[in-house]
Amino acid sequence: MDDVAAQASSRSRAAYARLENQFKRIGLVNDSAGMLQWDMATMMPTGGAEARAEQLATLHVVSHELLTDPHVSDLLEEAEHEPPAEPWAAANLREMRREWIHAVAVPVDLVEARAKAVAAAEMRWRTARPANDFKGLLPLFEEVLRLYRETGRIKAARLGVSPYDALLDEHEPGARSAQIDPVFDDLAAFLPGFLEQVLARQAAQPAILPLEGPFPATRQRELALKMMKVLGFDFAHGRLDTSDHPFCGGVPDDVRLTTRWNERDFATGLMGVLHETGHALYELGLPKQWRHQPVGRARGMGLHESQSLLIEMQSCRSREFLGFLAPLARETFGGQGPAWEVDNLFRLYTQVERSLIRVDADEVTYPLHVILRYRLEKALIADQLKLADLQGAWNDGMKELVGIVPPDDRDGCLQDIHWPGGAWGYFPTYTLGAMAAAQLFAAAVKAEPGIPAAIGKGDFQPLRSWLSSQVHGLGSSLTTDGLLTKATGKPLDPAVFKAHLQRRYLGV
Amino acid sequence: MDDVAAQASSRSRAAYARLENQFKRIGLVNDSAGMLQWDMATMMPTGGAEARAEQLATLHVVSHELLTDPHVSDLLEEAEHEPPAEPWAAANLREMRREWIHAVAVPVDLVEARAKAVAAAEMRWRTARPANDFKGLLPLFEEVLRLYRETGRIKAARLGVSPYDALLDEHEPGARSAQIDPVFDDLAAFLPGFLEQVLARQAAQPAILPLEGPFPATRQRELALKMMKVLGFDFAHGRLDTSDHPFCGGVPDDVRLTTRWNERDFATGLMGVLHETGHALYELGLPKQWRHQPVGRARGMGLHESQSLLIEMQSCRSREFLGFLAPLARETFGGQGPAWEVDNLFRLYTQVERSLIRVDADEVTYPLHVILRYRLEKALIADQLKLADLQGAWNDGMKELVGIVPPDDRDGCLQDIHWPGGAWGYFPTYTLGAMAAAQLFAAAVKAEPGIPAAIGKGDFQPLRSWLSSQVHGLGSSLTTDGLLTKATGKPLDPAVFKAHLQRRYLGV
Repeated sequence: MDDVAAQASSRSRAAYARLENQFKRIGLVNDSAGMLQWDMATMMPTGGAEARAEQLATLHVVSHELLTDPHVSDLLEEAEHEPPAEPWAAANLREMRREWIHAVAVPVDLVEARAKAVAAAEMRWRTARPANDFKGLLPLFEEVLRLYRETGRIKAARLGVSPYDALLDEHEPGARSAQIDPVFDDLAAFLPGFLEQVLARQAAQPAILPLEGPFPATRQRELALKMMKVLGFDFAHGRLDTSDHPFCGGVPDDVRLTTRWNERDFATGLMGVLHETGHALYELGLPKQWRHQPVGRARGMGLHESQSLLIEMQSCRSREFLGFLAPLARETFGGQGPAWEVDNLFRLYTQVERSLIRVDADEVTYPLHVILRYRLEKALIADQLKLADLQGAWNDGMKELVGIVPPDDRDGCLQDIHWPGGAWGYFPTYTLGAMAAAQLFAAAVKAEPGIPAAIGKGDFQPLRSWLSSQVHGLGSSLTTDGLLTKATGKPLDPAVFKAHLQRRYLGV
Repeated sequence: MDDVAAQASSRSRAAYARLENQFKRIGLVNDSAGMLQWDMATMMPTGGAEARAEQLATLHVVSHELLTDPHVSDLLEEAEHEPPAEPWAAANLREMRREWIHAVAVPVDLVEARAKAVAAAEMRWRTARPANDFKGLLPLFEEVLRLYRETGRIKAARLGVSPYDALLDEHEPGARSAQIDPVFDDLAAFLPGFLEQVLARQAAQPAILPLEGPFPATRQRELALKMMKVLGFDFAHGRLDTSDHPFCGGVPDDVRLTTRWNERDFATGLMGVLHETGHALYELGLPKQWRHQPVGRARGMGLHESQSLLIEMQSCRSREFLGFLAPLARETFGGQGPAWEVDNLFRLYTQVERSLIRVDADEVTYPLHVILRYRLEKALIADQLKLADLQGAWNDGMKELVGIVPPDDRDGCLQDIHWPGGAWGYFPTYTLGAMAAAQLFAAAVKAEPGIPAAIGKGDFQPLRSWLSSQVHGLGSSLTTDGLLTKATGKPLDPAVFKAHLQRRYLGV
């Protein structure tokens, strides 16, 4: 290597080292905001809301300024001149660039306009939904859509993709609708007919016996904490609290789960905790040596959802796990009789029905709700659908996909906060996650055939160990497709998910 | 006004407006850190400690960089060219300058060296104290002292005061040892003889009857929450939790109090809550229109302590309040018999004794503990006392002031975390606060003679209303002396505190 090249190489290394420092700082500011968000949902008294909003806005501005600092741009170019040879560092540099592009693409005044429009639309949505007032929300909703269309257009130019894909890329790095379309079309062609079959099979069986409550919240919490331990949640690095909307927050060294308890139905809370624990195990298992660096973070929302669904849907709604849970649940709640037998519990927790509300939907119909939203938001962003025409399009889609039509917008196109809340391009990640969960679980069982039996004994160690090496410990070192291919031998394949559904719901 | 002057004036106004924005941002970053510190003490699992330390360090660096940004220096000069005419804005500019001086005075490498030395010394202190190992702590302790001596020297040059006063000024803006010395000497001359008299009077009275426990923590909490409501604490803007060391944290719109419960003695927890509620009422009462600005903050640690002691010592250990509390305490804990009579409770909660430990000391001996520390830390910072000679100096001082000598350093010069923790120049604020509390309470009663009787009925409205206009609502718009003079007619006067002690403890 001649002197000039050696100097350039040394400059590249120095630039990369400085980027690591800067991104660590950015990561820690974001982590601080994450903890404050958890507090807001769980601990904060109502009168703290305004001050908290200002704290979060300030941390957001600070983080954004650290990322868009002109030095960062120079350092990225310098470092990319001769990227690190070590693969994790190289991946880290790639992720830094990705975050930087998303951050600098959008002008500050658009960021501010979006924040204001979203705050106004979200607030209006909270009253418009119960009042079934689509028209009342429309002007604010239109403004949010307009600003996200603009965001999509601006980012599209930077990323060389369509505006919708540019929005999608924020939540699901690397995902493109050209790949999602055929997968979702495949599911949309399969599921309605499959749903008919499942409903017919369920109808032919004896009635499912309901569990008699009430189920005191303190008991539910005891059982949930016990199950979190069974799953391997480390209480030295996290806790469980209650909030209106369950979530997994905090930071990888201090994961904060929340749930809510329904005293008439303990499964809501328990399955919620199991779901969030799946998210938590991902966070807790991220590579420690890359803490606070972009490459050390979870890969994307789809893969995150795959981890919660792998625990909740694949593992914990299985007959094996319910066999382990049943005696503990009986003991906790003093349950007895045939309703509490494993077979009844399994049928109860895998019951399928045509429903209007996505968040209450079962494993079979959920993807249909998601596909509807995916198709609609693509059309809205591409300006092929007017927001004023959303109600009709929604109801037509529900009829086609789920087979029922909402009686009103409250249980129809007004049910989700995502769009007025600015989460455009987020919906598909739920179903990408569900498919990835099936594919990863199948691969885990193939690699470790003892996994289902171990789960039946409350032993998640074999599953966790596989997930740790194949998913959790990899952070963002691979692309989602790269990770799936390495772990399962192929990129996302809806056939595995369909096979799972057929096995569980038709017994084939 | 000619054109040039008009332009300069307009530039000054613009600069001041930009400073308000910058200081708001700094305030909000600090507020975020404050909330995370509360979480660390109350909610955080042990494994979150390292990540939290990094979050806090990052927010500290961000805040420091925002304050020491070269633009701030220019803006301060520009704004000071023609300071705002409005008195609050003028005071705000003055406080901005004060914060800026403290921040820029200390070079970044000294800040970092201090943080490291303090972390090491604090950690060592936690084991050295129980092990009575002064020698083992000494090297790390020396290093902390060395760095704070240096800090004092550097700031002294900027502030035009002595190194010790420069450290003191961080905690008690504007305070100078030349003013504290005579006040503390006065107390030090008065208290030992007074203490003899009180002890003789107590000894001549019938024995105080102990209250029979245990006192369940849940009941203690109920009573404490009830008393917080009585005091006027607004639960829409704050909450009460438990932590190892009680404190008042959070932000003015969301005040987070903590306490700990002792099941053998409910007074520890309850009086702790009343004390912290005094701090909280100050925070909750700060002027909303100056939120996040330097002038909108509490005036200093001495005045803050005056508010907690005004509630705990002046109000809630009074015979009037104990008359209100007694039946509620009996009801809460099922107490009965002569031990629960007001007279016995009053004697129990105003009991005086020579004690070794500052934090357990009563109202009469507490100032003696503080004066000892004040004299020693002044000598240590001035290099007139070697740290290696601290033990002897401590024990001599205890003998002279409190009249007893610690059997070992555990209960002697190792008892406080302040010095290894870097809080030099903090101790005097406790006793400055105690004296200010007596003076403010006396002035409040003079202005509103109905206050003691109202307190006897659990009605704190008259007292709170006076405090609101004379202290809480003033933020940092006045100096401490200016505030005391406006509220009480004179600057700090130890005679009022002495008169309070004589009335309460000798009945004269």
